[in-house]
Amino acid sequence: MKKFINDPADVVAQALAGVAAAHPELRVEIDEQYIVRADAPRPGKVGLVSGGGSGHEPLHGGFVGPGMLDAACPGEIFTSPVPGQILAATKAVDGGAGVVHIVKNYTGDVMNFQLAAELATEEGISVETVLVDDDVAVEDSTWTAGRRGTGATLLVEKIAGARAEEGGKLAEVAAIGREVNTHSGSFAYALTAGTTPAAGRPGFELPADEIEAGVGIHGEPGRRREKLRPAKELTHAALDAILDAKPFPGPVIVLVNGLGGTPLIELYLIYGEVARHLEERGVRIARQLVGNYVTSLDMAGMSLTLCQATDEMIRLWDAPARTPGLRWGA
Amino acid sequence: MKKFINDPADVVAQALAGVAAAHPELRVEIDEQYIVRADAPRPGKVGLVSGGGSGHEPLHGGFVGPGMLDAACPGEIFTSPVPGQILAATKAVDGGAGVVHIVKNYTGDVMNFQLAAELATEEGISVETVLVDDDVAVEDSTWTAGRRGTGATLLVEKIAGARAEEGGKLAEVAAIGREVNTHSGSFAYALTAGTTPAAGRPGFELPADEIEAGVGIHGEPGRRREKLRPAKELTHAALDAILDAKPFPGPVIVLVNGLGGTPLIELYLIYGEVARHLEERGVRIARQLVGNYVTSLDMAGMSLTLCQATDEMIRLWDAPARTPGLRWGA
Repeated sequence: MKKFINDPADVVAQALAGVAAAHPELRVEIDEQYIVRADAPRPGKVGLVSGGGSGHEPLHGGFVGPGMLDAACPGEIFTSPVPGQILAATKAVDGGAGVVHIVKNYTGDVMNFQLAAELATEEGISVETVLVDDDVAVEDSTWTAGRRGTGATLLVEKIAGARAEEGGKLAEVAAIGREVNTHSGSFAYALTAGTTPAAGRPGFELPADEIEAGVGIHGEPGRRREKLRPAKELTHAALDAILDAKPFPGPVIVLVNGLGGTPLIELYLIYGEVARHLEERGVRIARQLVGNYVTSLDMAGMSLTLCQATDEMIRLWDAPARTPGLRWGA
Repeated sequence: MKKFINDPADVVAQALAGVAAAHPELRVEIDEQYIVRADAPRPGKVGLVSGGGSGHEPLHGGFVGPGMLDAACPGEIFTSPVPGQILAATKAVDGGAGVVHIVKNYTGDVMNFQLAAELATEEGISVETVLVDDDVAVEDSTWTAGRRGTGATLLVEKIAGARAEEGGKLAEVAAIGREVNTHSGSFAYALTAGTTPAAGRPGFELPADEIEAGVGIHGEPGRRREKLRPAKELTHAALDAILDAKPFPGPVIVLVNGLGGTPLIELYLIYGEVARHLEERGVRIARQLVGNYVTSLDMAGMSLTLCQATDEMIRLWDAPARTPGLRWGA
């Protein structure tokens, strides 16, 4: 294994120390393992907390800041954050207006966020949970009952974050987050597996000419292994899988997301294919984002996410965000 | 070779089509192969043009927009842009106040930009060239006489771009660009080589426990192959190499840059080590940036860049930029 680390056991804590040094606008609680806006809690503002296993950066810690999350709880790599950690983050961002938990649908994450929500409720904090389960590739998976939460998490965090920033109430912020999730579908391909520092070798092996179609962000199996095909064919198949799973009659927000080891030049090439194929399918693109946002360590791969966007979602998507990983208008 | 492409020969053109579709705020001339601000030329504004081989994205095309470049000329992968292409971009951004060429020090780039500058001059456009040669690892290299241009290119484009945006004259914009370069030093490590679509296999082979210290952004050999060591030791050695090469008495802008295949969690871990070691060495950090900005396709690796920053440079660094690859304040 070749990585820029010191000790596999300390990667998350040492990366958090780097985040703390690089981003004075954030407060990083290294012992309790969460990242929070330095100005938290903000009285009267609904707090947004997300989290999950590390290894998907910039998700979630990179999306803490005005217009997106108030706090993020990174677990160890590909490991759920623990309830105490989530509770501490929830208390840190509670400004009296309640807290929304944005949770990707993995069994451990769901359980631990639920327990933290119960503990927070006992302490008088109102918590609403938005569950993200946008991956259309498979129903149930290695660590998931139901569909997995993947690329749409970014959209939920951006759009619900903007709603909270402008003064939305707890129920409103949660409602728009759920609406974004319901309106979203994603599909991913892996060309190679990522390598966790603890394992020291790729999470799975693929023959030199095969890919995993419908892969999860921890390398979970997808629909099938298949031969590598031209980007155009893979893009069409992924879009068709999403369009078959959910209706997308109106304008969409598109995310072309790299899984960590795929160069930007390939992601733009894919976006060109996406734009052409959606036009052929009669789907209008309202907004688009291309880059590495929801990754799987150094996995070479990409995911496509479509979100059937209302005018309100587009307005909130366009609102300013000021975070390490996503920034515009501020 | 596993890549999301259609045909190795069409990667750059097809990626440019994707850039055109994703960024309506830019104009992409796919046949002439350059990317330009949609509002170019802007009368009275000094135009900034950069370019070089593709494969280093977001450099340069991702840095076109208000506050940075007016145009970028991507060559084929790891191949210099041609004079006609550079001339066309130069003419497209000439608003009557002259044009600055920002050129990384590779023999082909230098020759072709020089020829384009001569042709532009013949057409009545004043051109100043800023040569970037910040890499302290080696003197002369595979495609370079003198030092290679690497991470500092981003700093030159940001700071000179801000100076042009606020109305700086041709000589002033060129002068601050040169000053940034003179004040900068960089050093890179490769854990693996990148794979060009044309070659279909990694540019060089490294044993499983070895790295290339001082590698170039096309995989050019560095100072030596050495055993992989903890991130802390590698970071210290890279910083010491930079600090030995140039004086850095005052505050610095730091860039921790991924070469394409290195996860963000490792780059942040490295930044933590950078911050600690610079403190030990008595070097104050004024600003910092962590991410994948000057890449080498899918190479797992990272580079460190320090720039001895004047107050003026910091002011211009903080000025708004609105580009696909770097954005703040707008």
